[in-house]
Amino acid sequence: MENIFTDEYFMKKALVEAKTAFEKGEIPVGAVIVIDNKVIARSHNLTELLHDVTAHAEMQAITSAANYLGGKYLKDCTLYVTLEPCQMCAGALYWSQISKIVYGASDENRGFVTMGTQLHPKTKVVSRILEKECSLLMRAFFRTKR
Amino acid sequence: MENIFTDEYFMKKALVEAKTAFEKGEIPVGAVIVIDNKVIARSHNLTELLHDVTAHAEMQAITSAANYLGGKYLKDCTLYVTLEPCQMCAGALYWSQISKIVYGASDENRGFVTMGTQLHPKTKVVSRILEKECSLLMRAFFRTKR
Repeated sequence: MENIFTDEYFMKKALVEAKTAFEKGEIPVGAVIVIDNKVIARSHNLTELLHDVTAHAEMQAITSAANYLGGKYLKDCTLYVTLEPCQMCAGALYWSQISKIVYGASDENRGFVTMGTQLHPKTKVVSRILEKECSLLMRAFFRTKR
Repeated sequence: MENIFTDEYFMKKALVEAKTAFEKGEIPVGAVIVIDNKVIARSHNLTELLHDVTAHAEMQAITSAANYLGGKYLKDCTLYVTLEPCQMCAGALYWSQISKIVYGASDENRGFVTMGTQLHPKTKVVSRILEKECSLLMRAFFRTKR
């Protein structure tokens, strides 16, 4: 039987979150955290609503997943996020020792790759999953702001 | 008249927070955020208690100060923190556009200077304020863990 639990499958769930952020007037970034093919955290960017630069989708997802697991380390977990994490979020992911990060669109200005933020040696990274959908959503958002 | 509101004055308040963390069994890091010589946020590391890698003193102080100010940018604010911020906290401070960061002890392994995390161009940095007291508290804590 075909495995339905692909990276695309979970990225679609992160995209649903990103669209919710869009509808709230937030930069449309969404995230889910998965363990054993089960979503244990879902979140979207809320920096405008909360007036809080720390309210990125990833940060909320990390807190939420740790709360679910009852421990601060996200071993055996995968984060799916529609946009490449920034320095702050990559720094938080470093501390969490998360097993895998999967992101959609790259952020060539503020993403952790350009900024040189270090991830934990145990963390694998997969990029460009549903990249086009993730990028299009971002571009559509910034068009509304012009 | 002598200005009592020196960097040492506010770092002492951050140290009070760090000592509270110590008493709770947390890595003893404390922070305050100040605007116009007024403390608008105070916090200490709570990563163990909350099972949350994002609960560093600085992160909580940023959220708290933004809440007080009713806006996400910490312009004209100074963060006093007993330990050099990590990648995550420096990344959050980048987004906040905070005016000034003052830290006590350096963190040569995980601090933002070693890790190469970028701060906002508007942010000034002062280091080594009450460095000895801040370092001694950290060392005393890790002695209890051996």
